[in-house]
Amino acid sequence: MNIGIDMMGGDFAPLEAVKGIEQYFAESELPARLLLTGDQASIEELLVAHAIPRNHLEIIPTDQVIGMQEHPTRALKEKQNSSIAVGFQLLAGGKTDAFISAGNTGAMLVGALFSIKAIEGVLRPTISTLIPKENGQTGLLLDVGLNADCKPEQLNQFAIMGSVYAKHILGISQPRVGLINVGEEEGKGNILAQATYPLLKANTHIHFIGNIEGRDLLLDKADVMVCEGFTGNIILKMAESIYEITHQKEIHHEYFERFNFEHYGGTPVLGVSKPVIIGHGISGATAFKNMILLAEKMIEKDLMGKMRDELTRQ
Amino acid sequence: MNIGIDMMGGDFAPLEAVKGIEQYFAESELPARLLLTGDQASIEELLVAHAIPRNHLEIIPTDQVIGMQEHPTRALKEKQNSSIAVGFQLLAGGKTDAFISAGNTGAMLVGALFSIKAIEGVLRPTISTLIPKENGQTGLLLDVGLNADCKPEQLNQFAIMGSVYAKHILGISQPRVGLINVGEEEGKGNILAQATYPLLKANTHIHFIGNIEGRDLLLDKADVMVCEGFTGNIILKMAESIYEITHQKEIHHEYFERFNFEHYGGTPVLGVSKPVIIGHGISGATAFKNMILLAEKMIEKDLMGKMRDELTRQ
Repeated sequence: MNIGIDMMGGDFAPLEAVKGIEQYFAESELPARLLLTGDQASIEELLVAHAIPRNHLEIIPTDQVIGMQEHPTRALKEKQNSSIAVGFQLLAGGKTDAFISAGNTGAMLVGALFSIKAIEGVLRPTISTLIPKENGQTGLLLDVGLNADCKPEQLNQFAIMGSVYAKHILGISQPRVGLINVGEEEGKGNILAQATYPLLKANTHIHFIGNIEGRDLLLDKADVMVCEGFTGNIILKMAESIYEITHQKEIHHEYFERFNFEHYGGTPVLGVSKPVIIGHGISGATAFKNMILLAEKMIEKDLMGKMRDELTRQ
Repeated sequence: MNIGIDMMGGDFAPLEAVKGIEQYFAESELPARLLLTGDQASIEELLVAHAIPRNHLEIIPTDQVIGMQEHPTRALKEKQNSSIAVGFQLLAGGKTDAFISAGNTGAMLVGALFSIKAIEGVLRPTISTLIPKENGQTGLLLDVGLNADCKPEQLNQFAIMGSVYAKHILGISQPRVGLINVGEEEGKGNILAQATYPLLKANTHIHFIGNIEGRDLLLDKADVMVCEGFTGNIILKMAESIYEITHQKEIHHEYFERFNFEHYGGTPVLGVSKPVIIGHGISGATAFKNMILLAEKMIEKDLMGKMRDELTRQ
């Protein structure tokens, strides 16, 4: 198993990535082989400083970096020797089985959509986020911004991909799927939600429980919460701001601590043929370790193969 | 000035409405005349029990009640002598200048839309909510559910109506209008947001500051926050659930206390020719008092006239 890591992504690159790798090696009995893209000299120096054994890793030197504010498509095209572009070349060429970066989110999305193939039958890949439930459980919200406008068929696929993820990665045996809506009854909602409801109801690949409202998002009502990327993005960023506000106001409570999205490592792009995991710019060592562990789990479980099966099997 | 009040609406009817009236009379030097629709016997009894003077009020006896779960259109049609239906008859006939109820929200909306006229030029009326900002200020969010699907021109009108409300009712001299979106830059967003941005930018009746994201909703970035009713409803109900969760977990902080939407009294329907204020089902005495004060202020300021001026003047 080979996992690619962009060492130049994130606000604390490459230090926090190196520390994350250190944690990962310290905890894993049979670690994956890591292929690190980035500036060789600074990575080498940090690997020595942190006494990280070299037998499970390899540095692929790159001499360009895509900045956090750069235009994704343009940057990927113009900076072919950047740590992200090379990372995707390795993934597309089969040299790695997954790719992780805390760098430019847009460039990671563009790379995921255009460097590697979508899973057979997928209309549009999606990105999701974990939502902490008030009773200690964790739900999956998708889409959170990749698809601002959606068709009912896409939301139906998000429900399937989210369910596969919830089952095999979150360990929820029969994930309850809820359609985010403005009312509980069938027939409520905007045109999209009204048209999506019957598709979800008829979908035998998922366990659809009906509509869920804004008040249910933080309650343990559904495990997989489906909406288009406009609403999902607003929910995600509002939830993130709740953490920031409580943190700033020094309101300490374990519930709000769970809104610290750094804990979750990163967001996988779902619907593409290989694991691509996008971390927050502020990712620290633990976030990097968690992203490597997530990539490992996604590969081990053949998550993409399972998604393909569910999406194509009638 | 005559204000109609549905005495049978809400979970604690008619007691909390009577107590709210008691508070209102106790605080007002020149109170409005209140026309109360509902069951005469039980209202009379409570007025006597609370020693409320009768010189500023009148009971309009009704013998039907629209339940909280009834189908709005059907109930309004079939229960012509209900406290809500009669309340709207008084409003439409000019016997009252405003109407307040904490009863069936759907029936109140249907009544507002069909019993009285929309303001000249208004494409669709809207409902809004107040959002507590983390720095102590208060913002206005609209639409919060009346219009699940919107056209750009509607959002543009919501921005105007919200600005007039923020200026004259909330006392914000030059309300900053933000378009709720998934990114800051012009051009971001779904098709609706992309098409709305240039309308808001060109609108000389408002002070448009650009896009605001989910993370800005609880920060003091914009005073008037505009979106279609699907997203707005999710935001509103998620904000309400934050209060409920913190309350339940006994996380006490004055910031979260401000999320107790009961404090705000009620939601006015904006875009109709007379003030219609809809309270929460759980409205208590203070909520009723605040709704009466809000109706009084809306009438005094001729808010609907000011909205018409802004909407029709080029």
